[in-house]
This record gives sequence, structure tokens and C-alpha cells, in this order.
Amino acid sequence: MDANAQPVEVTPEGSLEVLSQQEVDRLRRVDEGGQHEILRRCALAVLNVGSRTDDTREILAQHADFDVNILQQDRGVKLALANPPADAFVDGKMIRGIREQLFAVLRDVVYIDSEVTGHFDLDSVDGTTNAVFHILRNAGVLRVGRDPNLVVCWGGHAIGRREYDYTKEVGYQLGLRGMDVCTGCGAGAMKGPMKGAAIAHAKQRVRNGRYIGISEPGIIAAESPNPIVNELVIMPDMEKRLEAFVRVAHAIVIFPGGVGTAEELLFLLGIMMKPENRAIPVPLILTGPPSSADYFETIDRFVGAALGEDARRLYRIAVGDPPGVAHAIRSAMDAVREFRYQHQDAYYYNWRLQLDRDLQAPFDATHEHMAALQLHRQQDAHDLAVDLRRAFSGLVAGNVKEHGIQAIEAHGPFELRGEPEIVRHLDELLGAFVAQGRMRLAAASYEPCYRLVA
Amino acid sequence: MDANAQPVEVTPEGSLEVLSQQEVDRLRRVDEGGQHEILRRCALAVLNVGSRTDDTREILAQHADFDVNILQQDRGVKLALANPPADAFVDGKMIRGIREQLFAVLRDVVYIDSEVTGHFDLDSVDGTTNAVFHILRNAGVLRVGRDPNLVVCWGGHAIGRREYDYTKEVGYQLGLRGMDVCTGCGAGAMKGPMKGAAIAHAKQRVRNGRYIGISEPGIIAAESPNPIVNELVIMPDMEKRLEAFVRVAHAIVIFPGGVGTAEELLFLLGIMMKPENRAIPVPLILTGPPSSADYFETIDRFVGAALGEDARRLYRIAVGDPPGVAHAIRSAMDAVREFRYQHQDAYYYNWRLQLDRDLQAPFDATHEHMAALQLHRQQDAHDLAVDLRRAFSGLVAGNVKEHGIQAIEAHGPFELRGEPEIVRHLDELLGAFVAQGRMRLAAASYEPCYRLVA
Amino acid sequence: MDANAQPVEVTPEGSLEVLSQQEVDRLRRVDEGGQHEILRRCALAVLNVGSRTDDTREILAQHADFDVNILQQDRGVKLALANPPADAFVDGKMIRGIREQLFAVLRDVVYIDSEVTGHFDLDSVDGTTNAVFHILRNAGVLRVGRDPNLVVCWGGHAIGRREYDYTKEVGYQLGLRGMDVCTGCGAGAMKGPMKGAAIAHAKQRVRNGRYIGISEPGIIAAESPNPIVNELVIMPDMEKRLEAFVRVAHAIVIFPGGVGTAEELLFLLGIMMKPENRAIPVPLILTGPPSSADYFETIDRFVGAALGEDARRLYRIAVGDPPGVAHAIRSAMDAVREFRYQHQDAYYYNWRLQLDRDLQAPFDATHEHMAALQLHRQQDAHDLAVDLRRAFSGLVAGNVKEHGIQAIEAHGPFELRGEPEIVRHLDELLGAFVAQGRMRLAAASYEPCYRLVA
Amino acid sequence: MDANAQPVEVTPEGSLEVLSQQEVDRLRRVDEGGQHEILRRCALAVLNVGSRTDDTREILAQHADFDVNILQQDRGVKLALANPPADAFVDGKMIRGIREQLFAVLRDVVYIDSEVTGHFDLDSVDGTTNAVFHILRNAGVLRVGRDPNLVVCWGGHAIGRREYDYTKEVGYQLGLRGMDVCTGCGAGAMKGPMKGAAIAHAKQRVRNGRYIGISEPGIIAAESPNPIVNELVIMPDMEKRLEAFVRVAHAIVIFPGGVGTAEELLFLLGIMMKPENRAIPVPLILTGPPSSADYFETIDRFVGAALGEDARRLYRIAVGDPPGVAHAIRSAMDAVREFRYQHQDAYYYNWRLQLDRDLQAPFDATHEHMAALQLHRQQDAHDLAVDLRRAFSGLVAGNVKEHGIQAIEAHGPFELRGEPEIVRHLDELLGAFVAQGRMRLAAASYEPCYRLVA
Repeated sequence: MDANAQPVEVTPEGSLEVLSQQEVDRLRRVDEGGQHEILRRCALAVLNVGSRTDDTREILAQHADFDVNILQQDRGVKLALANPPADAFVDGKMIRGIREQLFAVLRDVVYIDSEVTGHFDLDSVDGTTNAVFHILRNAGVLRVGRDPNLVVCWGGHAIGRREYDYTKEVGYQLGLRGMDVCTGCGAGAMKGPMKGAAIAHAKQRVRNGRYIGISEPGIIAAESPNPIVNELVIMPDMEKRLEAFVRVAHAIVIFPGGVGTAEELLFLLGIMMKPENRAIPVPLILTGPPSSADYFETIDRFVGAALGEDARRLYRIAVGDPPGVAHAIRSAMDAVREFRYQHQDAYYYNWRLQLDRDLQAPFDATHEHMAALQLHRQQDAHDLAVDLRRAFSGLVAGNVKEHGIQAIEAHGPFELRGEPEIVRHLDELLGAFVAQGRMRLAAASYEPCYRLVA
Repeated sequence: MDANAQPVEVTPEGSLEVLSQQEVDRLRRVDEGGQHEILRRCALAVLNVGSRTDDTREILAQHADFDVNILQQDRGVKLALANPPADAFVDGKMIRGIREQLFAVLRDVVYIDSEVTGHFDLDSVDGTTNAVFHILRNAGVLRVGRDPNLVVCWGGHAIGRREYDYTKEVGYQLGLRGMDVCTGCGAGAMKGPMKGAAIAHAKQRVRNGRYIGISEPGIIAAESPNPIVNELVIMPDMEKRLEAFVRVAHAIVIFPGGVGTAEELLFLLGIMMKPENRAIPVPLILTGPPSSADYFETIDRFVGAALGEDARRLYRIAVGDPPGVAHAIRSAMDAVREFRYQHQDAYYYNWRLQLDRDLQAPFDATHEHMAALQLHRQQDAHDLAVDLRRAFSGLVAGNVKEHGIQAIEAHGPFELRGEPEIVRHLDELLGAFVAQGRMRLAAASYEPCYRLVA
Repeated sequence: MDANAQPVEVTPEGSLEVLSQQEVDRLRRVDEGGQHEILRRCALAVLNVGSRTDDTREILAQHADFDVNILQQDRGVKLALANPPADAFVDGKMIRGIREQLFAVLRDVVYIDSEVTGHFDLDSVDGTTNAVFHILRNAGVLRVGRDPNLVVCWGGHAIGRREYDYTKEVGYQLGLRGMDVCTGCGAGAMKGPMKGAAIAHAKQRVRNGRYIGISEPGIIAAESPNPIVNELVIMPDMEKRLEAFVRVAHAIVIFPGGVGTAEELLFLLGIMMKPENRAIPVPLILTGPPSSADYFETIDRFVGAALGEDARRLYRIAVGDPPGVAHAIRSAMDAVREFRYQHQDAYYYNWRLQLDRDLQAPFDATHEHMAALQLHRQQDAHDLAVDLRRAFSGLVAGNVKEHGIQAIEAHGPFELRGEPEIVRHLDELLGAFVAQGRMRLAAASYEPCYRLVA
Repeated sequence: MDANAQPVEVTPEGSLEVLSQQEVDRLRRVDEGGQHEILRRCALAVLNVGSRTDDTREILAQHADFDVNILQQDRGVKLALANPPADAFVDGKMIRGIREQLFAVLRDVVYIDSEVTGHFDLDSVDGTTNAVFHILRNAGVLRVGRDPNLVVCWGGHAIGRREYDYTKEVGYQLGLRGMDVCTGCGAGAMKGPMKGAAIAHAKQRVRNGRYIGISEPGIIAAESPNPIVNELVIMPDMEKRLEAFVRVAHAIVIFPGGVGTAEELLFLLGIMMKPENRAIPVPLILTGPPSSADYFETIDRFVGAALGEDARRLYRIAVGDPPGVAHAIRSAMDAVREFRYQHQDAYYYNWRLQLDRDLQAPFDATHEHMAALQLHRQQDAHDLAVDLRRAFSGLVAGNVKEHGIQAIEAHGPFELRGEPEIVRHLDELLGAFVAQGRMRLAAASYEPCYRLVA
């Protein structure tokens, strides 16, 4: 795409392109109240499939001349793209999966702006859970009449070839067993399982296989959705994204990853450790190739030390066994179905799980907030999990998010203070992440965005 | 269905049955703020297909023991029906079209309650038009990628066999030409065109033919949707229902009818006579069998006398010529498409038409309001059309709606005052409606609900 | 369509239009060995939907200038029609259902010529049954994975309004219960059940309702398929058509009719009376409106007298009860399914029924053959049924088929000789047919094509 | 699958499982005239997806206890498999794609036996071309209403990782451009392009992507279809398989391979060099990764030496450029469409190409026949191409086919005699194949099955 080229006009896919004049007006407004910048940023991420960096600020700078505008047309709505990244096109035509994702972005930005903000009490647990539900429902993600089969896969975007191939193999084995896959929709462990499942679904003639990607405006630029994702949802922020994962999951598989993956694990443990949730089945397997055995041991040690043996019982670690993992997940689905059936719970949304407000509330990763985290065991393990989750969330921001990178540049690394024992384990864990190149895509030059203080 | 029988449990059709817990709670509440009574009433109407009366109060009294409850189930939502009318069932199984309509009712009641009320400024023209748009969009009625082909058909529910067969034949000829049909979804002229179109669609192998029915809680009991309707929408009130008709129509056909049909015609003329709307094509044909020639002459005379020659130019009267009507409508579609294409208007919603607030505002048919209507020509013809519309709206209420019937019983007939010339024509028109049995289904015993005062 | 108009070119519907060059060549040949005349005749019948006569010779004479040619095109095959009947078109475009039927005709003519003739031993029972199977399979009529639900409806094309409305109502009640309908695909009792079922299927949202019409080149001109028929099959001759009906039927309903209907009933009784078939369930109901009660009594008396009480036990007569008929058929389906399941029989083709060669062998209705029929009870009842079937078959030919009409014109009425008692009942039955106008569409002037001799 | 296990019963996929009793009987017969052995062998190949050998004899020996039987069931046909290979199953359930292929095998074996053998003059060019057409049509491969987009990909089953990845990338780039893929349906270059295209189709939301595999009973065991193949066709023999490839192809891509690939190239050149075919566009590209540049040079030299410069002009060699190859193919499709459109040729079958009877006639690779081949330039280049094709065909047989391996074991290597210059080039080419491990999957121990004699 030549920078001086005419804007590319794109017509929508799917049926959600019927906008009211008011909605169109709002999207067009570039000013404060408008949604234009969020739309632009998410649209760029979707188009930027060929990206080899995960530095949001760099990506935005590279594509400063990219813009997106909405045209109300005789037969619906069109998007006009100025200077879109070339990789989204084949011989001048946009890849259809990307086109669908572009309009999914539009759908969610419109919906959040016009139907969520101001309509739900986002300061309450129930209001937030309800808002998450409505966004997912509007996106068509919640479907009745299907047995539980959705496996949420977490893991790093910056993983090596061997780990990547392993995630593909697990996805393949899950797909052979009719499982669908949901990830954060970026590269690495977010892409591999979908690719494997897609091949398996082709062999099993599963024509309506679901490859759900759940993102949010802050992270999406660093984790461009891969075009296999055929259901893309943009949640308003990281915490609602995490809640969405947990409530749609019928089972969860965690592959090797970095601080983002640790954040996800701690968010989940923070929920599952609540006494009210103990009886609810949430099958959870941590898995990777034999070469990742050490990695999982480090994680496991950290969890044991910080949160106790109880926390360790909530998951199973399986190394080098894709068919075994898939078989176990498949079997666990029956228990999930049985439980929900007995309790008359919906299959498509796990209403029953109770979340603390502390987990749900968006965490703003400033130096002040990071320094104030309570990283010690003089509190409920469950509360420690909440603050550890926030710590890792801050590290993700410092690594790849726009505001985080700016804050680090301005004020130096975040300071994390805590009980010596916790700090020691944290140091071991983060050190391993750095050593194994899990922090950033361009790992060679990783400059830590944190400093640990015992 | 035995009155002592267990409630019948019904599972939903379609994909809109994913409700949040809050929505379910709200539906369950029978108290003031809840929507239970509206749901019960609309559900009854949908089930009551075999009804031979149009007296809402009588129907509600007959089925006082009917109730509907919502069960949140493991795999979605179910309805539990106590004492449902037997005609909705075949060998104990509910007819599937009725089942779909039942859940369409649920969908709209939920949506209006949770997403419309309080979210739109229903006191403004734009806010109302926007609300109508959102309800239709949520119901899936607005579809892109289709050329204009939706013919709104208006006409009486209480018409004779010859007129009914004629509406079928027109529907058949429309269907042969690929037209879809939208009506008020009751009996008579609301059913005939759909039946005819359905047979024609079968011959033309149109598998996705649309038979759209638009109703509202006040009228639905008197006009039970026929099960051919495969897209049922419940609007909040009569005025929004009329606006919905006008905005989705690509052309309008009016068959013989009574006061309801007159209301519809006047609503439409009230819009089309506005100077701002003059250039917008809204093809309009009044048609019936040769035996109805007199009827249309009476209507035409009344319009000419009350609203002037200009108003008469907005429609064409065609008698006894179904292929001719269908051919004309088909041709007019090209002009509609061309106009919208030129003006970059949506094909699925006629945003461009401007409505007066007076037309949009719900009219509450009390004796006081009826007596206060300005039925004289010392005003813009267009304003007279507005008040004439209200007059007919009140007569519909007095004939078949619950509150109207009660008001008449308590206080005697409505009094309509006006300029002698207008009253004379009104008298002629209403007299003809009574004489031709167009007022009520059980026409033999019709007792006028009005008194004209010059 | 103007007689001097250019040929109308028609592109195919469906997927069977891939012809080899050899097949195209053969269809083009007009000479003896070619299939052109059969194609022309069947195509004319399909297009001739508006026909009000059932005199094949008259129809062919009226449309002597009609012709059909095959064009091999870049993307398949096209038909070029010279002077097609106007009723097949709406605003110059052929009704799509008719277009499908046109290519169904092409498909069967090609298949019978290239894959049946010479490939099957049509002189043997098994070879013939196999040929019937292959033609139906090639036409896509045999489908696995469906529970028995196909009701073959027989009855006259020349019936009155009351009887016609009754056949519609029965079709409607069958359709409400998910039954599909198969008929001889002409007017009257062949059209009514399909029309009723189509409306019921619309209400039940049965989108893949089947309206199967089975015809043959000799009769099709007199019984133009109605366009609702969405699976049209042309069998090589009347006997294979009758075998096709019997083998695909899961149940059979017989409405009032004339000699053709009598032929069908006798063909069926001839099969069901065979001892080998006695245990096989073939639900059979004779039904009509109350006004047709006498008609069925006459039939019943005739069967009792000619074939004995055993034959009468093979059917049930139900008068004026469409829901009852439909309910009984629906219930009988369970027995049919159970029987076939137990015996590992296919659901889609009743292989188990044994036919006599005498029933299968095409009957050539010449004066000589008609006079030689053995119409007496000095033989097995079952053999008498066979010759009675032939007698009625001859009368059908004399009434409406080209060769039959010619033979009668040349040599006077057919002579039927038989035992006095049989002749007496036959006289009563045929007299009733004449009196009730069941012989021909233009009944006023019916001139019997037979003479009975005791 | 335990060897003593009960037979596994498999129900069919798709709609071709309606068999007549006669067809079932024939399939059951194990004797000479029956088709049981062919069915058993093809079924084994389909199930044997995990196979790591290409030695047909070895595979058959390993699975000597495998058997397949046909059960005529209440709702169609089932297959009973005794001792099927375990890799076809996931957690005890057969992979659905394999199940489909199993019934495709059944369909073709039945069709060839009952509708081809004896019905076509297989000794004539036209009769054979017609038979190929009928088999493909019966398999549903010939589809109208689609623009040319089918790319036949040839290449070796025994190729290295780098070449395999390259075939995937080309398939991916073709798939991004909406191309469908047809191969010989085994491993290596027959699998890679399909896998790549499947991922690309997922991204482009092409839900009906076609992955056509064409095999024949002699080769299928050595080249087990991969389960991505969603249209499997079994042709009667190698020559009809090659004709099928050429007639359905809209373009052809040749990847590196061994003697089989050489056979395919020579078959195609033998056709394209005929003067009658010179004007017909058959886009042909030879391509591989940069590491395969030498390979193509050797091929190119051989063609130039043996068949002349004219032959070399019929193809283009492109090295290391998947997007370029795909772009060129995509562009060439327009020329193909234009040509066929101009000449009113079908898009789905290239009738226009003329084949010599010598190319079509099955070649029986005995020592006598191999020794008698005319490998010299004292004849038309086109005739030399025919005998060279036979030479390579014989080498394929000697390498992997049952009869060929037996013949070599009994009588030693085939002897190929020819003009010194031809033999020299042949020696170079075959030597390169051996050196590069292209002869057999277990290349380490390759023992040549030929001896060249100048």
C-alpha cells in the first residue's frame, strides 16, 4: 500500500453492520468523547498481521499515517482505510478473515460505547459481570444448544519453535476430539492451538469450528489477532477480558509464557481459591514439551511458596503428552456438563463463579500503585493472589503497553516491594522469564522494567 | 390442554434466547415495574391462533388462568405455560412457527425493557426514530445486501371471503415476483397476502421468503399473529408500530379495511404530505376486488374532501387486477432502489422520511382527548391528517382494545366534534364501515363507540 | 410468448446438468433412436401449467410449434425453448420451480436412455425393480437418515371444489405432523395435498418439505405437474410409475377419483393380497368429505364383490375427518419404522414387497388386449385384481392418452367382457364415475370409451 | 484395535450410500468376479494414514487380517471392519474425514463395477474419455457454476522437509487466492499443498474449499490419502487417473519428485505436444525451493535432449517464489476461463484436449514390455514421450506396486534399452533421483529396479 494511495474502501462481512445514524456520528467524531482513536488502534492491530514487534508504541509510530473512517452507504456501512499495512492484502484484496475482524472491532467499539458505558454499574461485581455477558452476547459468542467444548488456551506470544510446535500439536489433538479453542488471539501460544485445531477440524469435517480471540484495546496492538480467529471480541479492558475468558471457558490449558501468562494464572487461582468456588469444576492443565519441564517446576514452586499447597491442587502439570492432555480435557468436559446440568447452569457462561471486586477492578499500573502492592503472606493467600496478579499486570504494561512503556521511560523501572521469601521466588521466576526470552519478542536486548525490593 | 394440566414447557427457537440473570429476574417479577403482564398478554395472543373474536377483554377473560413463566435452564431459557390455548398444538406438540413467535415476543419485551426504556429520548423525534431502529435491528429485521423488495400490506382483519381471496391473489402475484410481505400480522388482509406469497415463494423456490408481522401489546390480542409470520416484532405502542411499518416499507399496498386501515392511511398521508418528504418515493396502491370499488370511492372522496387533491395524488387505486398491482409494485422497486442509491440511503430503513412529533407521540384515547381533536380545515391539511389519524386510532381502541372498551362502557361513546363538512364525510365513511361489517369480527351486533357532532 | 419470438434460453437449476458430449448428441437427435420427442413432450407438460384440458392429443396439437433444443455451453447445458406456453413465465421470466422441473425431465430422459435401457433385464421382476430403484436413486429421491414420513396421495384430477378443499385440508394436517407428500403431480387430488402441506410446513418451519411428483411420458401431458412439486421424476411407463409409488410410500391415502384412481387401488391390492406381502405394513386410508361417502361405498362394494372380504380388510375408509386421518397416518409411521428396523429393511425403498410379473409388465391398451381380459372369479382373487387393474388402465388410455384416444376414434369403444356379477358392479362403478364427472375435466360431454359385455 | 476385537461398524457420510441389493451382493462376493478384494485394498489404504512405508506388499502383509464387509441395514448400508489400523481412530472413534473417504471408495468401486465395466468401449479413445467423465461425475467432482480455480499439484511422496515446507507455502499462497487443490492424495508433495491451502482457506473464510484426491487401486496402498482430502476418487487404473487429472485441471504445478512425477510430466507433455492441442491453454509451472534448483535443471535438460526445445516451451520453471507462482497461476486462470468461454467449452472437464490411444491404454509393466519400449529419437518426439512415460510407469511399479515388486524379485531388474544419448540422460536423471532419496520412503537401502542398456 503506497502512502499516497487513495483510501481503501472495505465492505463488511456478517450481519452486524447495520448502524444507526447516531452510532455512525459518534464513531466519526475524533474528539474526546468519540471512539475514533480506539477504533483506529484496534483496526490497525487487526490489519497488522505481519508485525514482528510487540512494542505498541513502536507500532503506532510506524503507522502514524494510518486512519480509518466510516462511510454510511446506500446498502450499509463501509470503512475507508488510509495507509493500511500491506500484509492484510493478497494481490490488492483484503484477506476475508481480516475483513471480518475489522467489522467485529467496529461492532464491539460501537456496542461498548452505546450500550455498555453508562448502562451498567461497572463499580459493582454484578454490574461488571453483566456487562461482560452483554458484550459477549452481542458478539454472538454465547450459543445455546452446544455441549461444553470450549478450551481457553493461555501462553506466551514470545515462545520458541519447539514450544510453538507443541501448542500446535495440543490444538490438533483437541481439534480431533471436537474441541473449540479460545485464546488471547496474538502470536505464539495464542496462534498455535488454533492452527492445530483448524487442521484437525478439517480432518474431522467440523465446518463450524470456533477460534475465538478475546482482546482489549490496550494489548491488541502488541498481540495482533491471527486471521484464523473467526470470532474476535474486544473487551473494554484487561480485567474484563480475563473475566470473559474465565466465564466462557469449559476448560483451560496453560502453555509456557511470560508475565502475561503468569497474570492469567494468578487471576484464575485468585478465583478458584475462593471457598465459594471450590466445588465448581474448572479443569486446568499446565503443559509444554519436555524441554519446558523446568519452566513449569519454577512456576509450581512459586505458586506453592506464595499461595500454598491448596493452590497447587487446582491444576495438573503434564509434560510432553498432547494426546494425553486432549484426552483428559475431553473427559473433563463430561464432568463440566454434568455439573452444570445438575445445577441448571448455562453451558455458555459460567455465572456461578464468584469474583472479588478487587480482581475485577481495572488496575492502573503506575509507579505508585506498583510500589503499594501487598506482596506478603500476612494476609489471605487469596488476597495475595490478587496483588500478585496486579504485579504481573503492571509488568505486562511496562513491557509492551503504550502507557507502561512511557512511564518506565519517564521514571525508571517499577519498584515491587514484598516479603523477602516472596521476593526471592519472584526474582527466580522473573529471572527465568528473562533468561528464556519470554519477556519480549526481541528478547536479546531485554531491559527489565522492574526492580525487586525485599 | 386441560385446565388442571401441568404447565407445558417450551424450549426456544432461534438464537436470541441467551438472557442474563438480571433480565430473567425482571421478567419474572409480576409487580408494577416488571414486564410479566405484557409478556403474558403477548404470549397469549401468539398462542391464541384459533381465536374467532377480536375483543381483547373477552379474550383475556376467557384465558384468565393462562400464565407464562420463565425457567433458567442448563442450556438456556425455557418458558412454562399454564393453560395455553389448545389450537397452538398438534397432537400435543406446539407448532414450531408459534414457538418461534413466542420467543420473539420474549426477545422484544426484554429488549424494550432493558435497552430502550430510559436509554432513548422518547420525547424527541430523533430519539423515537432511533428507538424504533434499535428494536427492529435487535429483532434481525434490518438486513443489508438485499435489494428493496418489502411490501407492507395494510387492510382489515374483518373482511369478507371475496376480499380475503383477493388479498391472497395479490400476495401470490407479489410472491411470484420475489417480493416479501409485511403486515400487522392478524387475520384477514393481514394473513391473505402472506399465504399467497408463501405459495408463490414455494413455486419460485424462494426458501428465505420473509413474512414480517409488526404488532404492539395493545392490539396483539385482537390480532393474533398467524403462524406463517416468520419474523414477529412487538413494538412498544401503536405509533412506533406505524413508524416501523413506514420506515421498513419499500412499497405499501392497502386493501379494504375499517378504522384501523383508515388510521394507517392517514398516518402515511400525514407523512407524505410534508413538503420535506415530497420527493421521496413511497409507492402506494389501494386495491381490492371489483366488489370493493365503492369502498375505495368512499375513501377517496373522504381524503379529497378533508385533505385536498394533493393528498389524492399520493396513491393509485387499482380494482380487480392482482397481476397489474404486483407488476406496478415490482417496477416501482427499481425507482426506490435508484433513489436510495443516489442519495446513499440505507435500503433497510427509510431514515430520510421526516415525521412530526405530533404523529409520533402516543395518543391516549380518552373521552377528553377525543373530544378535543381539531377536525376542521382551518389549519394545514397535514395537521388535519394528524388529528384525523388520532380520531381513527381512538375508534380502534373503542372497538377492540381493553382500555377503550372499558372507557366506552363507563362513559358512553366517544364524541368527535368537527367542521360540518368533515363530519358529514366522516359519517358517510364510518357508516359504510358499519354497513359493510368492517368494524368488528362479530359485525352483526355492532354498537358504535362514537358519536359525531358537527 | 409470441409465436415468432426468439427461442427462450433457460439455464438449469440443481446439480444434474453435467452431461457428456455423447448424452448431448443423443438428446439432439430427433430421429427414431433419439429421445427428442419424449423430451419435447415432457417439457411441454411441465411448462403447460395453466392448461385446463386433459386431452393429450389436443394439448400436443395446440402446441405443435413448441420445441426444445439443447445447447452445450461454456458452463454447462442450456435449453432453448421455441414457443413455450406463456403461463410458465412471470413478467417474461420462467418460474423457478418450473425451471427445476424442466431439468428434472432432462435428467430422467437422459438417464433412462443411457443407463437403464439395455442395462437392466426389464423382462424379469428383479431387473425391473432394480431399474425403478436406479431411476429413483439417480433422481435423488432415495434418502437415508430420515424416518418414514412419505405419504403417497392418490385421487382424481377431475374433482369438485368440495373434494379439492378436502384434499388440501388433509395435506395441511399431514404437513402439520411433519409428513411429506408424493402424488402423480397433476391437478385436483394430486395438487391439493401438496398445497395444504406446503402451508403447514411453513407454519412448522419445515424448510425441506418434499413434494414429490412421479409421472411418465404417456400421462404427463394430461397431468401437468404443479410447480409446488420440488422433486419431479419421470418413469419410463405407467407400471414402473406405479411400482415407484408403492416402493417409496410409507403410507397411502386415496381420495375420490376416477378410473386412474381405481387403477392405482387395484394395483396396490394386487400386491397386498399376495400371501408373501401380508405381514408387511402398508397403511392405507380411503378418505373424502362427507359428500363423498356414497362414492367410497360404491368402491367398497365393488372391491368386496370382486376380490372378497379379505381385500376389504386392507384399507380403512374415513369420511370427513382430516385431523383423524393425519393422526392415524402419523401413528402408523411408527409401526412402519419398527417393522423395517426389525427386518433391517431400508426406510427409503420397500424392497420386501413382492410383485407379480403380470402387474409389472406394461399393458398395451389395444381393443384386442382389452377384450381378452379375464374378468371373472374362476381364478385367484389376486389374478382378477391384476386384470381389473389392466381394464382400468385401458380406460385411462381411452380417456386421456394419445394412443388410446386414437384407437377409440378408429375402432369405437373398448369392449370389456366378464362374469355377469363382475360386469354389473363394474357398470355401477363406471356409471357413478360418469355421473359424478370424474372421467374427464370437461365432464359435460363425456362419451364413454368402453362397452361392457356380460 | 486389538486383533481379536469385534469388527468396527461404520455408518456412511454423504449421500451416496444408497445401494441396490444387487450391488450389495456383488460387493459381498469375494470370488473372482467380485469386487471385494479391490474394496478391501482401497479401504485399507484409506485407514492406513499413519503408514511410514510405501511398499504395497509390505502393507498388505502387515494387515493380512484386515477385512471389510458390507451390512445392509435398516437405514442404509454399513461397513464392518475387522482389524482396522489404529491410526484412523481417535479415542476409539474413526476420524470423520476417513469415514467419508471409506464410503467414497465404496461408491467408486460400485460404480466402476456396475456402471462402467461393460458399459463403455474402453478400447476406444472416446469411450475411455467418456468413462473417465462418468466416474468423475458420479463422484460429484464435476461442478457447474464455478470459475476455473482447480490447480492439480504433482510431486513426490518421498521428499525432504525443506521441499515439503515449500509445497505447503505454495498451497498457502494458492489458497489465499481462492484456488482449490487436486493431487494424487498421498504424502509429501501430495499433502503439503492441501495443508497450506486449508490454512489459507480458513483465513479467507472459504468454507467449501476443495481438496481433491485422485487415486487408483494399484497405487493407493503406497500413497494413503491424507484425511484433508474431502473429495476422493478411485479411478480404475493409472492411465485413467492421469487422464482425470489432466481433464479436470485448470492449471498444473509440479514439485520435485521421483519416477512417478516424471511419469506425470511425460504424460502431460505427450498430450500438449500434439499439434491439435497446441492452442489450448494448460498453465504449467515447475517449482521448488532454491535447494531444488539443480533438480529442475536435470529435468529440464532431460526434456530438452529427449523431446526437443518445443517441449521445454510448454512449462515455466520458478524457483523459491511461492507468491509469484500463485500469482501467475491466478492470472493464468483468467486466460483459461476466457478460452473456454470463447469456445463454449465446459469449465469442469477439458473435453477439447485430444489424447492418443497409446497414452490411454493401460501399460502392463512386465519385463518383456519394458524391454520392448522404443527409447530413441527415430520417431516423433511425441511418440517418444509416450514410451518414456511407460518407462517411468514401469519404474513406479517396480518400486512400490505389488505386481512390480514381485516381478523384480522373480526376474531381477527391468531392462530398459535405448539410444545411447537418451540412455545417458535417463541415467543422469535416475541417478539423481536415487542420490536425492526420491525413489522410496526408506531411501537408505534403495536397490534399483532397473538396468539401463544403451
